[in-house]
Amino acid sequence: MIQQHGGNILQYENILDFSANINPLGIPESVRKAIIANIDCIEKYPDPDSTELRKKLAVHEGVNAENIVCGNGADDLIFRIVHALKPQKALVCAPSFSEYSRALSEVNCDICEHELTESSGFAVTESILEQLDSTYDICFVCTPNNPTGQLIAPEILQKLSQKCLKNNIILVCDECFMGFVRNSENYTIRNFFNDRCIILKAFTKLYATPGIRLGYAVCDSTEIADRLKNSGQFWNVSSLAQKVGTAALDEAEYVRKTIEIITAERRFLASELTDMGAKIFDSSANFLLFKSHTGLCEKMLAEGILIRDCQNFSRLSAGFYRIAVRTHDKNLLLINVLRRCING
Amino acid sequence: MIQQHGGNILQYENILDFSANINPLGIPESVRKAIIANIDCIEKYPDPDSTELRKKLAVHEGVNAENIVCGNGADDLIFRIVHALKPQKALVCAPSFSEYSRALSEVNCDICEHELTESSGFAVTESILEQLDSTYDICFVCTPNNPTGQLIAPEILQKLSQKCLKNNIILVCDECFMGFVRNSENYTIRNFFNDRCIILKAFTKLYATPGIRLGYAVCDSTEIADRLKNSGQFWNVSSLAQKVGTAALDEAEYVRKTIEIITAERRFLASELTDMGAKIFDSSANFLLFKSHTGLCEKMLAEGILIRDCQNFSRLSAGFYRIAVRTHDKNLLLINVLRRCING
Repeated sequence: MIQQHGGNILQYENILDFSANINPLGIPESVRKAIIANIDCIEKYPDPDSTELRKKLAVHEGVNAENIVCGNGADDLIFRIVHALKPQKALVCAPSFSEYSRALSEVNCDICEHELTESSGFAVTESILEQLDSTYDICFVCTPNNPTGQLIAPEILQKLSQKCLKNNIILVCDECFMGFVRNSENYTIRNFFNDRCIILKAFTKLYATPGIRLGYAVCDSTEIADRLKNSGQFWNVSSLAQKVGTAALDEAEYVRKTIEIITAERRFLASELTDMGAKIFDSSANFLLFKSHTGLCEKMLAEGILIRDCQNFSRLSAGFYRIAVRTHDKNLLLINVLRRCING
Repeated sequence: MIQQHGGNILQYENILDFSANINPLGIPESVRKAIIANIDCIEKYPDPDSTELRKKLAVHEGVNAENIVCGNGADDLIFRIVHALKPQKALVCAPSFSEYSRALSEVNCDICEHELTESSGFAVTESILEQLDSTYDICFVCTPNNPTGQLIAPEILQKLSQKCLKNNIILVCDECFMGFVRNSENYTIRNFFNDRCIILKAFTKLYATPGIRLGYAVCDSTEIADRLKNSGQFWNVSSLAQKVGTAALDEAEYVRKTIEIITAERRFLASELTDMGAKIFDSSANFLLFKSHTGLCEKMLAEGILIRDCQNFSRLSAGFYRIAVRTHDKNLLLINVLRRCING
């Protein structure tokens, strides 16, 4: 019954889903309109270069369009990176998003884990620098990390970036949840960017559009960007996804409001969970990891609420759960049921 | 100026595009309605198993849902096949669709070409059986073939299928254009299906929806189907693409009408081209390969019409062109301009 990923809710009817980390404000109206207005564009092949979208992303990210590669979700880009660069030895954090390892195993890569420990609140610390050496070809980090919600401290990120450059290690920094972070400009790897760095970003979570499949990579090296572009299928990003992305980038106010709500609601959920005796871990994302009794997921499901059982994340065990931060009315429902399930 | 593929028309304004092989009837109204009615489904992650669509495809194809794998266009499935099975030696026909080789080269496969000769009208003949032996892991054929439009004769297909089974060679039969063929039930590899066979099919061309990205593979072996499913990214088919596919499968009358129009219009174009001294090749698809003067593509472009210059197909040279079969009014425009450009 443990899900491979959150959000796979088809087998449940009328479930309240806290397992997928999607913006609770829902799809912006301008994005919905962009789809309807551009529906005829599906009669033509998509622009394989996502030219218009990349141009707009370049302004948004403060880079050149040549530094950006669009994908059928960020997941597509994880596989493109791996297939294009064919790393032989990789470092991934654990617990973290499982798709890095799944992609790496497709090219028979030697995958080493850097364990994030519960005792340090699952923070990425200097110890990752000790583990990394020139025998590695690639290193995947995620900030804020899924499922812990932890940001990597800027000073660690800086040292990581320098060490990767010095040792010719590709550093993939997954920032798919960075859009939910207050003052994110202080935490992005962009502050320590060099030509070994690749950032992953997604429209999926921030703009509540997981069904459309759209993500992108920002590469400091245009040579690496070209290799990602030329790896995998030619027309990977659908015409409608390109239109969705172009419309979504105008939604600055939606993003501002999102961050405000997420920050307040995450605080509410954390406080309530602490109050009911659960152990919470410091999150800056739109989800929260906590530790409580085993069997909680099944109990919640019987009450019509799906939370993410995290025991199938490497280095986590039974009793760890991830919940999405949603709007206050939904969060209240969650808390009421959680309280009943945890405290009997 | 030669395109890597047809249909990449963004650099041209007000161009009449005969380079992409899309159903000239345009997107069925029911498909358009399905997108609008289901727009909210993009707020949820797509079903990674495309359950509803695969159930309907299973009925359509007369197999079990377990035999079907959906992809982000048929192109996604070409790459999934190659990444999942990692063939070391492959046979591909030439000229044919170039993505097979591009995908195979990603796993450093030894790619051998089976030359289709102009003297035999680019037909696949018994000579492919002589070239295939147990040193091969995979063989890609396309019927009707892109860019020649040639069907593979049933007796050749049968022998090919048997030889692949006997020598444990995966036979990938790309039938993405089979939907345009009259009496296609006589020409599909399904008549000679065995557990080494994989069929590729696409919604792209037949239902005029290249911008939505949807294709599928039919595998006789559920073990191979599982391997394709588990190779590559988890959520590859967008929610809207799944809805498009489900709606399109009800469009039997649209498909019948399509075949009727394509057959008549292809005959018209072939007759006109012959009349103006071009050499045409026998096509059963919604496009036509012909040979004429070099430089024709540039001349046509100056008149506002884009045709597919085929000189970058392996084993073709300057002077080969592919045109899509469109509706009669558009085809008349094409013929008028072609006549001027060919005969001066």
